[in-house]
Amino acid sequence: MIKVGIIGLGFIGTSLGMALKQAGISGLEIVGTDKERDRPTKAQKAGAIDRTVGRLADAARDADLVIITTPSRTVRDVMETISYRLKDGCVVTDTGDSKRPVLEWAEELLPRHVSFIGGHPMLGGNADRAGGPRAKLFQDRPYAILPAKSADEKDVKDLTDMIRLIGAKPYYMDVAEHDSFVAAVNHLPVLLSAALLQCTSTSPSWDDIAKLASDRYRSVTDPSGSEVKAEEILGANDGAIVYWIDAFIQELYAIRRLVSLEEGDESRAELDQLLSDAWDKRISWLNDLVTPESVAKANAHRERLPTASEGLMSLFIGERQARRLRDFGKDKRSRD
Amino acid sequence: MIKVGIIGLGFIGTSLGMALKQAGISGLEIVGTDKERDRPTKAQKAGAIDRTVGRLADAARDADLVIITTPSRTVRDVMETISYRLKDGCVVTDTGDSKRPVLEWAEELLPRHVSFIGGHPMLGGNADRAGGPRAKLFQDRPYAILPAKSADEKDVKDLTDMIRLIGAKPYYMDVAEHDSFVAAVNHLPVLLSAALLQCTSTSPSWDDIAKLASDRYRSVTDPSGSEVKAEEILGANDGAIVYWIDAFIQELYAIRRLVSLEEGDESRAELDQLLSDAWDKRISWLNDLVTPESVAKANAHRERLPTASEGLMSLFIGERQARRLRDFGKDKRSRD
Repeated sequence: MIKVGIIGLGFIGTSLGMALKQAGISGLEIVGTDKERDRPTKAQKAGAIDRTVGRLADAARDADLVIITTPSRTVRDVMETISYRLKDGCVVTDTGDSKRPVLEWAEELLPRHVSFIGGHPMLGGNADRAGGPRAKLFQDRPYAILPAKSADEKDVKDLTDMIRLIGAKPYYMDVAEHDSFVAAVNHLPVLLSAALLQCTSTSPSWDDIAKLASDRYRSVTDPSGSEVKAEEILGANDGAIVYWIDAFIQELYAIRRLVSLEEGDESRAELDQLLSDAWDKRISWLNDLVTPESVAKANAHRERLPTASEGLMSLFIGERQARRLRDFGKDKRSRD
Repeated sequence: MIKVGIIGLGFIGTSLGMALKQAGISGLEIVGTDKERDRPTKAQKAGAIDRTVGRLADAARDADLVIITTPSRTVRDVMETISYRLKDGCVVTDTGDSKRPVLEWAEELLPRHVSFIGGHPMLGGNADRAGGPRAKLFQDRPYAILPAKSADEKDVKDLTDMIRLIGAKPYYMDVAEHDSFVAAVNHLPVLLSAALLQCTSTSPSWDDIAKLASDRYRSVTDPSGSEVKAEEILGANDGAIVYWIDAFIQELYAIRRLVSLEEGDESRAELDQLLSDAWDKRISWLNDLVTPESVAKANAHRERLPTASEGLMSLFIGERQARRLRDFGKDKRSRD
């Protein structure tokens, strides 16, 4: 018997349970718990867990592997609560997006006879949360593995194998780099979102401004809608977020220079180039993130199957962008 | 007979046609044209136009009202092409989001015997473009009216009546204010989006960073995906965009100060407050923008009808945010 305890049965926790159950591991028993009352039942119905337990400690007791998927700021408390229940040789992992704090907490709170190995499934820009949890969520996606210094080498290998079993691609990264990059793409967007909301909504004309705001304003302010706490941003980054704010302001100043110049063909052409470069970057990024799963999903919505990657692409990024990307590809090829 | 010519049969043009046809105006004939070949046929099938014409000039000839809904940067060319075809007393309007340039072009290019009255339907943050054009798009939404100085007063009144007929709320604004606010909510987001893409994708670690980027990065970079040209941003704003970039940077610097302070409860509490204020602002904004149409659409997707506005809200903004908004409302009421 291999016993796995999943603490936190939201989107990630439930998907992980489903993926493990469907990986065909013999003798696997998964127990799960969540402080939101309806989640364990849903997870059990979805085939993510075999059994619900009421208390954190019961999910950890006798477990070979404990997976913590609760929000980052609660991980410390979870570790504190379960530490006395962990058996010898147990592996503990998490799925949060900042790794330095959890590695420090693990060092401080978990017993020596336990291996803590931080984990971070990278879902990419096409992960459709609205579609609900699913086993294939991790298919062909990178999955970062960041072991504590004290973690047993064999345990790291075992967890890596498990990550391969659920279809993900194990990925090793330096902790400081990992957290700095997370600051750039997960924390900076939240701060930009908040700054845009502040600078517009504190205007005495906000009532009029709000009426004019539409799609673009909605997109940029979207990350503020997630329940982000200062701790997530302040605790994790060790200065990285300040570095990225400065890098961002430098870019924005370059743009400010272009828009503040007297109207002229040169600055106009430069700004057009910049906007179009940024756009190309985004398309390449989204394109890299098209996974076999998203392909299958896209196919299911089409009357006939797309025969080329371009056909598929257009489902995600719109016809015009797909066309542009094709041209972009052509340009690149002809340049080579 | 009242003859209307619609130039540009995209989302807005087609929706406007449908709304006018369904408003029950007697003797109304709508002709339409678009340079994309399949659009006029689609618009006719959707009941937006009675007849397709091949050339711009034919959409303008004998028209009592010409509605230009082509992208802002093409409006000048359209005006130049149609100006010799406009009959005495014709009203010309547009639907673009910047008004100073079109008012200047109208003054320069349109004949004296024509009234130009700029228009700007404000669709808000809940307008679902994916749902396709529809007559109810303007229902209860503000619709800005910005007449040229030379526009006939009766013509302004007539256009205002027409805007009421399609269910929208006519809204008068100062041109400079209007365009400055558009710079804040439509142009600034594009520049922030481009700056975020630049400052991350030019990093030597972009390959790793890109793997970690997900939902939040996708949302903030979304406006760069629309085909924005420098001209739209540079031509329209008369310095307003620089004002808003500076206001934004000031906010971001205030946030930078909070995150760069030594870790302490005070800066943490201040940042939490700021993030939560920003979030509340966004929820209030989205909430104001819930229209009867979006209500009906939301209802159609539910098994049972929601009995309270909160139930509805949660469809748009998620359960947690809806709960928070309810609490927010309670706090406000208990404070009053």
